[in-house]
Amino acid sequence: MIKAALSVLLVLVALSSTFGKYIPKSGKRIPQTLSRGWGDQLIWAQTYEEALYWSRSRNKPLMVLFHLEDCPHSKALKKVFSEDDKIQKMLDEDFIVLNLVYETTDKHLSPDGQYVPRIIFVDPAMTVRADINGRYSNRMYAYEPSDLDLLKGNMEAAKKLLKSEL
Amino acid sequence: MIKAALSVLLVLVALSSTFGKYIPKSGKRIPQTLSRGWGDQLIWAQTYEEALYWSRSRNKPLMVLFHLEDCPHSKALKKVFSEDDKIQKMLDEDFIVLNLVYETTDKHLSPDGQYVPRIIFVDPAMTVRADINGRYSNRMYAYEPSDLDLLKGNMEAAKKLLKSEL
Repeated sequence: MIKAALSVLLVLVALSSTFGKYIPKSGKRIPQTLSRGWGDQLIWAQTYEEALYWSRSRNKPLMVLFHLEDCPHSKALKKVFSEDDKIQKMLDEDFIVLNLVYETTDKHLSPDGQYVPRIIFVDPAMTVRADINGRYSNRMYAYEPSDLDLLKGNMEAAKKLLKSEL
Repeated sequence: MIKAALSVLLVLVALSSTFGKYIPKSGKRIPQTLSRGWGDQLIWAQTYEEALYWSRSRNKPLMVLFHLEDCPHSKALKKVFSEDDKIQKMLDEDFIVLNLVYETTDKHLSPDGQYVPRIIFVDPAMTVRADINGRYSNRMYAYEPSDLDLLKGNMEAAKKLLKSEL
């Protein structure tokens, strides 16, 4: 009960701090989140450089998620992804996470092209895990909502760091 | 009145969408925003590459704001910056905005070193406007809360695009 009250309080504080005086002509906007709905409780890196830095310094694998807010495949995956407790917990505790709606200039992040949704794992040694992929041979890093168990398996694989395999 | 009701509705929608099932052991977190309090009504770019792309394609100057969430100077500037209607309106209508808590690898964004808070303007022609600076000779791109008028003047200067000056 106290926890619930605290949550409400936190939300109110968050809300009050999001209300500035300026209102755009087109009307008030909902503040943008870094999670974009993929997991509001996760701590998201803002940029790839930042994510690599966190990954290396905390020795945790990085999950990079490319998506588009208007893409129906991205949206469908996002829904099951954000509602899956196990995925969210594992990401929170064992991964560095980054979601991007714009491609980076780093070609290693698009081993078989640029498409969405696309999930690429990167080892803390800064090696892109091109070996960890989904079930589609033409879009190797794409996942459908029905591929969540495969994704969880791949997350387990990504947790086995490259260094420890040497 | 209808507007107010609509705002409340929007907020409720935003809230309900931010509540997933997963709750971290350390307790529920407030979702991260891209604005980080520098202007919740502005549309913030996530990365420098994205910001450059928007700047070029929309022919609007880019403001890059380096800060740290725990830095008292950043916080003091953020307060007056986010509450200044004129700055917020100008940024919303005439600028591309990006705020970063990690440095980029691009050295052009730190003409006289890496410090916070630091505001760098970039022309849509992708030229860093090292000529647009604050009042401190040792930290040329730093601004204090009392420098808001200078900052507004600099924003006006940044709006005069390089191309049109040729």
